[in-house]
Amino acid sequence: MHQDVKILALEQAKIHGGKLAVEPTIEVNNKHDLSVAYTPGVAAVSSAIAADPKLARTLTIKKNTVAVVSDGSAVLGLGNIGPEAAMPVMEGKAALFKRFANVDAIPIVLDTQDTETIIQTVKAIAPTFGGINLEDISAPRCFEIERRLIEECDIPIFHDDQHGTAIVVLAAVLNSLKLIDKTLASVRIVINGGGSAGLSVAKKFLAAGAKNIVIVDKVGILNENDAAKLPAHHAAIAKVTNREKLAGTLEDALVDADIFIGVSAPGVLKPAWIKTMAAKPVIFAMANPVPEIYPDEALAAGAYIAATGRSDFPNQINNVLAFPGIFRGALDAQATDITIAMQLAAAAGIASLIPDNELTPTNIMPDAFQPGVAKVVAQAVEDAVHAKASVIRN
Amino acid sequence: MHQDVKILALEQAKIHGGKLAVEPTIEVNNKHDLSVAYTPGVAAVSSAIAADPKLARTLTIKKNTVAVVSDGSAVLGLGNIGPEAAMPVMEGKAALFKRFANVDAIPIVLDTQDTETIIQTVKAIAPTFGGINLEDISAPRCFEIERRLIEECDIPIFHDDQHGTAIVVLAAVLNSLKLIDKTLASVRIVINGGGSAGLSVAKKFLAAGAKNIVIVDKVGILNENDAAKLPAHHAAIAKVTNREKLAGTLEDALVDADIFIGVSAPGVLKPAWIKTMAAKPVIFAMANPVPEIYPDEALAAGAYIAATGRSDFPNQINNVLAFPGIFRGALDAQATDITIAMQLAAAAGIASLIPDNELTPTNIMPDAFQPGVAKVVAQAVEDAVHAKASVIRN
Repeated sequence: MHQDVKILALEQAKIHGGKLAVEPTIEVNNKHDLSVAYTPGVAAVSSAIAADPKLARTLTIKKNTVAVVSDGSAVLGLGNIGPEAAMPVMEGKAALFKRFANVDAIPIVLDTQDTETIIQTVKAIAPTFGGINLEDISAPRCFEIERRLIEECDIPIFHDDQHGTAIVVLAAVLNSLKLIDKTLASVRIVINGGGSAGLSVAKKFLAAGAKNIVIVDKVGILNENDAAKLPAHHAAIAKVTNREKLAGTLEDALVDADIFIGVSAPGVLKPAWIKTMAAKPVIFAMANPVPEIYPDEALAAGAYIAATGRSDFPNQINNVLAFPGIFRGALDAQATDITIAMQLAAAAGIASLIPDNELTPTNIMPDAFQPGVAKVVAQAVEDAVHAKASVIRN
Repeated sequence: MHQDVKILALEQAKIHGGKLAVEPTIEVNNKHDLSVAYTPGVAAVSSAIAADPKLARTLTIKKNTVAVVSDGSAVLGLGNIGPEAAMPVMEGKAALFKRFANVDAIPIVLDTQDTETIIQTVKAIAPTFGGINLEDISAPRCFEIERRLIEECDIPIFHDDQHGTAIVVLAAVLNSLKLIDKTLASVRIVINGGGSAGLSVAKKFLAAGAKNIVIVDKVGILNENDAAKLPAHHAAIAKVTNREKLAGTLEDALVDADIFIGVSAPGVLKPAWIKTMAAKPVIFAMANPVPEIYPDEALAAGAYIAATGRSDFPNQINNVLAFPGIFRGALDAQATDITIAMQLAAAAGIASLIPDNELTPTNIMPDAFQPGVAKVVAQAVEDAVHAKASVIRN
């Protein structure tokens, strides 16, 4: 089955030469059309924007266009495969932007993996776009690149690998908490994996009101007491997580924990450890395509709710639920950032798509193809912009 | 009429938010489609390209996609209006690429007018594209930017304002020579305007076999004897033009000249001067929208053939005859450059669209909407690539 899908993808790429086309939205069938689309008619549009550059956000493709930017350094499970090989992934992402939220997305792959050159390049092309989706850029460069671009650009910058994942996981947690009758402020959440996604999950959950987060990386539980031995980004997050100063391994962290979130590696969660967790354990095993534990195994070991990123099990937790609607909302609000408040609103919006009376342990997340997902998310994001509820930056 | 066109262009921009949309060429209607378009299917395409990056030119949008890049420094008659205001022009150009040659073109406007930053930015985004059309970048920066990018990128780089104009003017001259029964090697061609277009016309004509070219700029006829007083690019071209060492003004240059090519300013060609030219004077007044002389005035003063860039007179000489087919041919041949040989082939291709038995003084150029223009030009360009007829660089 997977093999068939791969062959089909390769065949389709051969046929189409990629997955996107650029189409004029106006007719150019005769000299009159030409004079409207190009010179002299276009001078009126250009002059209006020259007088007020903000009009570019209504009179040009900037209104509805997002760049999907990658340096090809951390592509799916493939690793550092470079810009050309990253392109099919960026094209696929662009196709999803259009399909789910009518956002025009343009893949831009970069012939550099130098942090400063990436920053300068994205800044230089930014006037073209209404937003920038950073994609598949490896840590720790991705942190600096995103931080600097947020500071220096006047359009939203969003590293989906970090924040998209965190937002959909938060949505899944919000709905799970209703089923297990616990609160975000009271549960212990163990995040396995201190990469860019894990850190973003931690920060997003803290912003949403979680108080007890424990991050486990290859060295074990991240603990403020070890700050001197940790890389800077781990030392920083250790100071605001693990307030109980737990030490040890993932196995130790899970004793009496309520929720496991894996953004790590295949098969690393042992069923026996689930049995040591608090009542009604929630297991989100997001490693893809092979999760930290398969849902059936987790449930057999006592998990109350189990979810993965895979489409062949219930409760698929997939970024596609988030990024199309987030950018749709940001573009429609002419937002200059995607704030934490907008991201939390997006998570709440996704969670709201399953009404309380339909929530079950195997139905905590909407299906990507359920009509209206992006619309609900976009509206939540727009409302957050207009409420100016928060200017906290991720 | 012009006012109506401008209002219409502004209205259309408001309705559409620009003139382009990005559309998936594959279906994404269910989970199976999603697994083909994105993960896991896309991994097969990415892996194939990672093993052989050249496959990007067949398996990704690079196969058919060109960037239209501008810094907004020299936009139409509007001047240095900046990137946002340049966008409508680049969108229009992208629409023409699609309409005339099925090339997917993506406008990229730059938040910098620094030569080095432009070069580094275009180099960085180059893996995305099968070619780069530089547009509306002011001289002399445009020369350095194009030269460096040609050297440092492995895809075609083409500054249309320089070379597109030169190619269509050359096509018009080739057909005119048949009507006046003279040869390119024998005629004196006076080019009024030493800007980027004028210099490209001169170089292209020299490459095509012209021997007697005189360039007139604001200081008068460019003459090798004045090299010390001239800017570098004018001193260089003076050494290979004006071998008769003419001095003086445009009026002086035109005495006994065969062909006038204006790429300068409105109304600068006096009818009386046409009367001093050789038999059957040819007048191409390309200043836009108001030419150096209107065709009816030129003909009344004794011109045998008159042409402009305008659509409301016969013999419109318009870049749109050239750039779509040139990039179509370059993409289809997977060319790494657009050589002088390819450019000369394009000019000959355009000229060939008017069969000899249909050539008249008011029918020297094909209409932009005549079917097959881009196809003929593309084939000529492809043939030139495969013939490897020349590696002379412009």
